[in-house]
Amino acid sequence: MKALVYRGPEQLSYQDVPDARPQHGEELVRISHVGICGSDMHAFLGHDERRPAPLILGHEAAGVVVGGGNDGQRVTINPLVSCLNCEVCRSGRENLCAERQIISMPPREGAFAELVAMPRSNLVAVPDDIPLRKAALAEPVACGWHASRLARRVLDESVSAPVALVLGGGAIGVGAALSLKAQGIGNVTVLETSSLRRDYLSTRLDVPVIGLEDLGDEACFDIIIDGVGYVSTRQSATRLTKPGGVIAHIGLGENEGGLDVRRMTLQEVTFIGTYTYTQEDFRQTAAAIFEGALGKLDWTEERSLSEGAQAFVDIRSGQTAAPKIILVPETSSEP
Amino acid sequence: MKALVYRGPEQLSYQDVPDARPQHGEELVRISHVGICGSDMHAFLGHDERRPAPLILGHEAAGVVVGGGNDGQRVTINPLVSCLNCEVCRSGRENLCAERQIISMPPREGAFAELVAMPRSNLVAVPDDIPLRKAALAEPVACGWHASRLARRVLDESVSAPVALVLGGGAIGVGAALSLKAQGIGNVTVLETSSLRRDYLSTRLDVPVIGLEDLGDEACFDIIIDGVGYVSTRQSATRLTKPGGVIAHIGLGENEGGLDVRRMTLQEVTFIGTYTYTQEDFRQTAAAIFEGALGKLDWTEERSLSEGAQAFVDIRSGQTAAPKIILVPETSSEP
Repeated sequence: MKALVYRGPEQLSYQDVPDARPQHGEELVRISHVGICGSDMHAFLGHDERRPAPLILGHEAAGVVVGGGNDGQRVTINPLVSCLNCEVCRSGRENLCAERQIISMPPREGAFAELVAMPRSNLVAVPDDIPLRKAALAEPVACGWHASRLARRVLDESVSAPVALVLGGGAIGVGAALSLKAQGIGNVTVLETSSLRRDYLSTRLDVPVIGLEDLGDEACFDIIIDGVGYVSTRQSATRLTKPGGVIAHIGLGENEGGLDVRRMTLQEVTFIGTYTYTQEDFRQTAAAIFEGALGKLDWTEERSLSEGAQAFVDIRSGQTAAPKIILVPETSSEP
Repeated sequence: MKALVYRGPEQLSYQDVPDARPQHGEELVRISHVGICGSDMHAFLGHDERRPAPLILGHEAAGVVVGGGNDGQRVTINPLVSCLNCEVCRSGRENLCAERQIISMPPREGAFAELVAMPRSNLVAVPDDIPLRKAALAEPVACGWHASRLARRVLDESVSAPVALVLGGGAIGVGAALSLKAQGIGNVTVLETSSLRRDYLSTRLDVPVIGLEDLGDEACFDIIIDGVGYVSTRQSATRLTKPGGVIAHIGLGENEGGLDVRRMTLQEVTFIGTYTYTQEDFRQTAAAIFEGALGKLDWTEERSLSEGAQAFVDIRSGQTAAPKIILVPETSSEP
């Protein structure tokens, strides 16, 4: 099969590799669409020791089952593979499993390829009327769905009409904003510093997208979802959270710093570290996509997998307006 | 009246000052016992800009009402004065009130004095059989009671038998450990670095008190209460929290740093900033003291208010084994 292989810092090669081979309990999936994530970029730049070269990156994928009893089934892929047997897995928090794996991290190859092997329990069937291009967004949006659910759970029940801010208009931030709305938070704003990205999103989202300069002096929020994870975004988050408010933090941009612990203590701000999603979150997100509860999902740009290397270069240079670039293999069933 | 007046960094003067005078809706209370808090020490060292000299410090007090219809009533004092009228106050989160005041911070003088004026709603009556010495512990213990309640609320409901660690064997940490136990957490340990303090506590608490060297390599906890608030304690907290676990942070030792945000994100650790207590927390803590649910409360040392300055010097030099020194005015009804 063809795959886009990470071969070292800033090196991606579109090349022939052996076909993915399903193990016991796994299905083979022909990839139709696979998004580029910030963590793929992190690995591409050589900054992720968990993803050493050579490796096939990519974990935001949808496609069609090949062979077996489910041959031809259209599916979206939950890339997180947990043991499903330990205490946290059995309690429905599979994302905390000590044995968890994710495709695009050894020992599992990723989905920037024509084929990927996945456990059957990681596949969610996609209705006929939903394009696989949209179904491939289940993974990035599920991160925001999960963060939104945790933030709502932790926020004090006395806050009857929470006001929410999402930091970052990347796919994580956009997915978080759409999830907050779909979960019943009426007042949601996205803060994005790039005017290119803001202009692009403003015509495509039913959520206000503002710049730093648009924040009033008195702006403050019950829920802030940091979909970036840099020192500067955490500084903004702790400054802009109301007393008793909640920050849900998804990003892995910088490892520490930015949290004003004194203010968090004196004003009782809660900071929730969030990682991916549970299986139930993933299913709920896919269902919300299928029901149209997350809008038109028309904020993506598609490119050929064979030209994936250039997409990484363009994203890095800030020249991409869309928050998500989706790569499409030549063998995609829905090119 | 006599009072211990903070007159500038490391200067405390026991001197005559005008008697405290109750305003409308307030009672005059003759102080019988008043504890020295870490925040008093912080102010004494000139490190708290919110407490400029000259000022009477002290906010952990119990005493007897003087005059009016409640003359002679024995009470413990909730020192936090909130508006009781704003949205957060009406929702029972009076500790988040934007107008909140606390005695020992302008415009309110503190309780290192023979008399203090307090709103009636800040006084909790003490049963005849409970010494005011114990009742004066309601304030520091309520901080831990509140933190314990928030941590238990945020911890995932699937954790059926949480294991808890409290960082610091000061009165905040001891109060938090006793509160966790009283609230139903069976497995609670206190970590205290001073062997002097450990030895003192080990004979007085029904909770194990250990040193850093006693922690096994695999030690990890569902709930950690940081009752210190330094960079080093936050580092320990983020390292020792189980995936999906909760840190409740009470201390104001150092303003930032120490949180390993990457680990908190990848392992879904939640950090709760906590400040003081709600009125209901304070009442529940006082009730727990009166019912004996917090043990014998025999981990205090008493000294005369007139010798309060020396107590500050001794605490600072680490020469006090007891986690709480309580000052007793000469006019105390229970000297």
